[in-house]
Amino acid sequence: MPLTPEAFAPFGDVVAAGLRDGASANQGTALRFDGSARLESQRPEARPNLAVFRSVARSLPLDVDLLEKHPRSSQTFLPMVCVRFLVCVAPVSPDGKPDVDRLVAFLCAPGQGINYLPDTWHHPIVALDGPAEFAMLAWEDGTPLDCVEFPLEEPVRIVE
Amino acid sequence: MPLTPEAFAPFGDVVAAGLRDGASANQGTALRFDGSARLESQRPEARPNLAVFRSVARSLPLDVDLLEKHPRSSQTFLPMVCVRFLVCVAPVSPDGKPDVDRLVAFLCAPGQGINYLPDTWHHPIVALDGPAEFAMLAWEDGTPLDCVEFPLEEPVRIVE
Repeated sequence: MPLTPEAFAPFGDVVAAGLRDGASANQGTALRFDGSARLESQRPEARPNLAVFRSVARSLPLDVDLLEKHPRSSQTFLPMVCVRFLVCVAPVSPDGKPDVDRLVAFLCAPGQGINYLPDTWHHPIVALDGPAEFAMLAWEDGTPLDCVEFPLEEPVRIVE
Repeated sequence: MPLTPEAFAPFGDVVAAGLRDGASANQGTALRFDGSARLESQRPEARPNLAVFRSVARSLPLDVDLLEKHPRSSQTFLPMVCVRFLVCVAPVSPDGKPDVDRLVAFLCAPGQGINYLPDTWHHPIVALDGPAEFAMLAWEDGTPLDCVEFPLEEPVRIVE
């Protein structure tokens, strides 16, 4: 489905201009939209890591066979070079595992970043149509709580 | 001048893929370049603010008549939608003011973000050729140390 703030709200934030009222900045040459993501770090020793991801192009249909989450940090992806990209998320089940039956795939466009709330199950970012480059921001401390993976017993096929 | 990590080093970091060796990620579908910016916050009460800036298009020549700095925080700009943008920086003089005679303008392209080190004099970000959207990351606490401005007595003209 298309990425909208409302549809994505249970999983995190859409990071884009124009989703709310902006404030004038830079001597009237810009509008700024502050606080566009709920950035969160829940470990005193974790440090912010701004990484750049260069992703190969993939195409649909796509078989999702693994999800991951960052239990103690938000994670933001901001497209710097891309055509379209795919964000797949799943609600959490009462047992803490992803509720794979309710997995949702969002189709995202240039100018739209996303921010996963801590502990949100998601598939690694997927570049569509062409290779892509993303900036990624998360708080990490080098321990296993930086990233938890969950292989799916049955792949979920994402179609256009 | 074109933006290169070497030329920009006194002022901060170029945030881009491929500037160093990457690590395989996302089941081999991506390369990640960690620690691409020296993110820094020097005030315990300051919080990270991820904002989106929507900038009007400007053209060269451009008269620079104001510089600003963020004394206690790095500031990162990541282009999400842009053609080219201009980053103008100046070294600091012994008296703390910008050394305007040594002002440098860098021409930046999509896929290239920049990160100003704390206390680096710079002009507000300038979108060239067309309107642009940038993600901005800085640590702020709502006090005057968030941003210090310095109007120039004589504008500096930036030409193509």
